[in-house]
Amino acid sequence: MNKTQITAEPGIPQIIIAREFGAARDLVYRAHVDPELLVQWLGPRDLAMTIDHYDTRNGGTWRYSHKDAEGNQYGFHGVFHGDPSPDVIVQTFEFEGAPGHVCLQTLTFAERDGGTLMRTVMAFQSVADRDQMVASDMVRGTRDSGDRLDELLAKLAVG
Amino acid sequence: MNKTQITAEPGIPQIIIAREFGAARDLVYRAHVDPELLVQWLGPRDLAMTIDHYDTRNGGTWRYSHKDAEGNQYGFHGVFHGDPSPDVIVQTFEFEGAPGHVCLQTLTFAERDGGTLMRTVMAFQSVADRDQMVASDMVRGTRDSGDRLDELLAKLAVG
Repeated sequence: MNKTQITAEPGIPQIIIAREFGAARDLVYRAHVDPELLVQWLGPRDLAMTIDHYDTRNGGTWRYSHKDAEGNQYGFHGVFHGDPSPDVIVQTFEFEGAPGHVCLQTLTFAERDGGTLMRTVMAFQSVADRDQMVASDMVRGTRDSGDRLDELLAKLAVG
Repeated sequence: MNKTQITAEPGIPQIIIAREFGAARDLVYRAHVDPELLVQWLGPRDLAMTIDHYDTRNGGTWRYSHKDAEGNQYGFHGVFHGDPSPDVIVQTFEFEGAPGHVCLQTLTFAERDGGTLMRTVMAFQSVADRDQMVASDMVRGTRDSGDRLDELLAKLAVG
């Protein structure tokens, strides 16, 4: 199985996430914009995801939350900038537990050896914000998400 | 007169703008959120600014354009993230001539020796995007804007 690569260079307010999937580019893209698919893979395995709304168009907003076994809720929201397409999805991202700390995310999907290379660039307001994100549950959540998306794509390809 | 400092370090997808004004923090802030004031100072001196809308609240959008002597129009738009306050204004910023290239701006206003230190951190999706911004009319526009705001604040203080 491919693994998720997470790069966070010292002093640069950015995280770069890269992962290859053995599925067609359009399908990997669709798993990001169809909330019925998204809800099946995004986030750590042990949290339950609920999508409030997911309006995938220029200026559209989204909100979802993750709930842990103790019932704690973690809400996130953002705004799409430009109409999402398989070429690029640009969106802002805010964890509601840290209001005012916004991250700008750019997701691209490139054909690679019959599969798809997905790349996410996360731009932060400061290196401190970036470091806070790395210190959070983000790394585990990102790795779990990649593995879960890989599994979902395999199921979709078979189905 | 104080001068605008523009910092763009090599390899870091960020621009930091700093300038002190000899005016109260609330007034400097108001010049950023009241469109009737904003239109009097934002942008290069030789361009005429028109504000289409400026909805200063969490999730609110803004759009304005600058027109040069030849009639060329340059449009910009963005989204406020969080309710703007004298503590911080967070917004996205897009030049409509380069769709898909989004910048995340964080403006803070701090009291400093009876005046106000204004600081803007611009986070870009890439160093290439940042370098493109520096190569554009942005530096001149930023310096002109700072000087024009300084002049406007002096007039408002007298009036």
